[in-house]
Amino acid sequence: MAKLDNGPPRGTRDFLPSEVARRESVIAAISASYARFGFRRIETPAFEALERLTSGQGGENEKLIYKILRRGLPVRLDAGTSPDSLSDLALRYDLTVPLSRFYANNESRLGRPFRALQIGPVWRAERPAKGRYRQFTQCDIDVLGESSVLAECELMEASLSTLSSLGIAPLTLRLNDRRLLAAVAEASGVAEQATSSYFVSLDKLDKIGWEGISAELAAKGFAPEVARTSEKILGGLQAGAGPAEVISHLADSLPRLEEPVLADLGETTACLERLAGRLSGLSYRIDLTIVRGMGYYTGQIFEIAQAGAGHSIAGGGRYDELLGRFLERPVPACGLSIGFERVVDLAAVDSPELGVALLHGREAPGLILQAAAELRDKGHAVSLFPRRKSLGRQLDALFEEGYRAFALVEEGSHGELRPLAPQAD
Amino acid sequence: MAKLDNGPPRGTRDFLPSEVARRESVIAAISASYARFGFRRIETPAFEALERLTSGQGGENEKLIYKILRRGLPVRLDAGTSPDSLSDLALRYDLTVPLSRFYANNESRLGRPFRALQIGPVWRAERPAKGRYRQFTQCDIDVLGESSVLAECELMEASLSTLSSLGIAPLTLRLNDRRLLAAVAEASGVAEQATSSYFVSLDKLDKIGWEGISAELAAKGFAPEVARTSEKILGGLQAGAGPAEVISHLADSLPRLEEPVLADLGETTACLERLAGRLSGLSYRIDLTIVRGMGYYTGQIFEIAQAGAGHSIAGGGRYDELLGRFLERPVPACGLSIGFERVVDLAAVDSPELGVALLHGREAPGLILQAAAELRDKGHAVSLFPRRKSLGRQLDALFEEGYRAFALVEEGSHGELRPLAPQAD
Repeated sequence: MAKLDNGPPRGTRDFLPSEVARRESVIAAISASYARFGFRRIETPAFEALERLTSGQGGENEKLIYKILRRGLPVRLDAGTSPDSLSDLALRYDLTVPLSRFYANNESRLGRPFRALQIGPVWRAERPAKGRYRQFTQCDIDVLGESSVLAECELMEASLSTLSSLGIAPLTLRLNDRRLLAAVAEASGVAEQATSSYFVSLDKLDKIGWEGISAELAAKGFAPEVARTSEKILGGLQAGAGPAEVISHLADSLPRLEEPVLADLGETTACLERLAGRLSGLSYRIDLTIVRGMGYYTGQIFEIAQAGAGHSIAGGGRYDELLGRFLERPVPACGLSIGFERVVDLAAVDSPELGVALLHGREAPGLILQAAAELRDKGHAVSLFPRRKSLGRQLDALFEEGYRAFALVEEGSHGELRPLAPQAD
Repeated sequence: MAKLDNGPPRGTRDFLPSEVARRESVIAAISASYARFGFRRIETPAFEALERLTSGQGGENEKLIYKILRRGLPVRLDAGTSPDSLSDLALRYDLTVPLSRFYANNESRLGRPFRALQIGPVWRAERPAKGRYRQFTQCDIDVLGESSVLAECELMEASLSTLSSLGIAPLTLRLNDRRLLAAVAEASGVAEQATSSYFVSLDKLDKIGWEGISAELAAKGFAPEVARTSEKILGGLQAGAGPAEVISHLADSLPRLEEPVLADLGETTACLERLAGRLSGLSYRIDLTIVRGMGYYTGQIFEIAQAGAGHSIAGGGRYDELLGRFLERPVPACGLSIGFERVVDLAAVDSPELGVALLHGREAPGLILQAAAELRDKGHAVSLFPRRKSLGRQLDALFEEGYRAFALVEEGSHGELRPLAPQAD
């Protein structure tokens, strides 16, 4: 064992006390904020039946599954054994598949609509890179059982309010609808089975522009009209076009669009408009080019970013067909996932006060603990430390760690409190 | 997928909102209480290097490890492949082995002594049974870097205070010392390599009595003097013997006992005596028959029970040699583990208030959310529900769920609050 590396496994992290305190503060703030909107925490186990995690809901994430070795295997395996046959459980790679199972398992004991908040670890065998971890925390909020865009509006309001309450501002929300994108694909002549591939290219618009998309679609074998028509519909808008303008443009360009899509966009943007009056710095727009990766979205989709920071910090959408795979009938569903690890970095939360450092010598434990108890009775958190030779240096270190007062255990005097301050060098 | 069982994997649990709320309340209360004693939460990953988890620290638990299938295996395995060669990571089965690695990895950034609080899931492939789970939460408190029994006294005071603050009373603490047990073994003529086997039998005293132990030791091949001498030393005390009486009896019976053992017992019992004056119902005694399972204990060991409930709810002890296996030099350590799942059942914590149920019809989302926002601005948590045909039955169900007020969204009237009460049938 002597030579064993003492670091955590590759791609995972140890969290020091100050880091746990920060993460727990953010979790408490998120939970309290969402509780005001009726979202309640649920929990599912870390692992699920492998069969459930590999049924196609997880997209690319299914390739990153950590499988658990089955127990009771023979000491020597037969020739040609497939590693796939050695597992029946695996660590969850997201919180959506477990949520679907949870809902199917517990529906009769849950209200309708049911508002779920999940905060917990997921595992993916990612190639380790800066800011990318093999165990990380996800924070998902879902409304199950509400078919109208009231669910989308609630999710957005609750999430934007929560992020604002964490001091993350100014926030920008971009809104789109998978039904719109499907209509654009159809109007552009994309065959139904090629829609996903078309979406993947479309998703790159802000990186490669229409010229790049045109080239990529051509390379994939799409007819030239596909890019041309798509650009006409999606690109035929000024960058700063307001919701009403976008909606009217879409009504003209996509006459065969199902009726509720534009009405829904109208409802959602009206809610966002009201919210912009309450949350300072909030901006929003319909952005016809956001696609979002997962295959299961069926309606509105959205992304939230901190303006200027570039990357998305939350995103989600409606997925009305996923739960039906576990239940006998469909259950409308809409969810939003907060990038927890990013939010922890951005959130303005206070470091906890560590209270009093009580320094002792070789007094009897009873005497030391009596002095500590007296300080605790006065409302202080108290940590004991043996007094070192250089008191000045020790007090500096304690201040650095976060203690703001100290006391000494001395015969006869039970811990007179003195403020800690950074010492002059 | 249609026929897939929607339950969680065998031996694991889904937690409903009321259950998560209860568990989180207990976690918050435990964290806050231990924080008053300077214990700070740390976190390690769910999995560790397999090699580290199978190095013998885990005793019987090592047989219950969930191993993770290595990635990048060939599609077909060679004949005779051992399943053991297919893993290099495994889920942790306790929090002590990860703590040792954590401390070795981060020592320079931690205070000394370092007081760690860990609350998190562990996994064991147990045979499922009532109250026994394959994923369950452990709660461990450890003092690292303090060699005197001040650490033991602190752990006991902090833990007894924490359990009391959760309304778990009256509490009983039983105290013993592995050094004492080793001295009894030596005085009884047990060879050093047979000590563990001797301890395993001794641990059964309250179940099988001296007669049973005598028979069991004989069956194991111990000489008859072993049981006789052990009974003379350990059984030569009245059931109600106080600490002073026990200590004096031991001084007589074990003249070769190393000097600090009895002095340490004196210090610890003095602290417990003081604590008994503060925590109502607390009782304690030296109990020479508690052994505790793990092999790594080196000094005092202790168990806490709720009087009358029979089973232990917390236990721990000193393990001065474990950390030295990861570091170049020994680090004294002392820890206590609370049976979290049992404490969740016993703790007196309030169910959270769910706030206001706001019932709506088919109004525009903007109108509904405006009414909700106005109630939230007044400080209420608000959950939206579509109004059902039978309002009476709906209000009953909402009361049952935990809502205590309701309001209706009506044109012109924005949510007048009315108290919810159980309806007469």
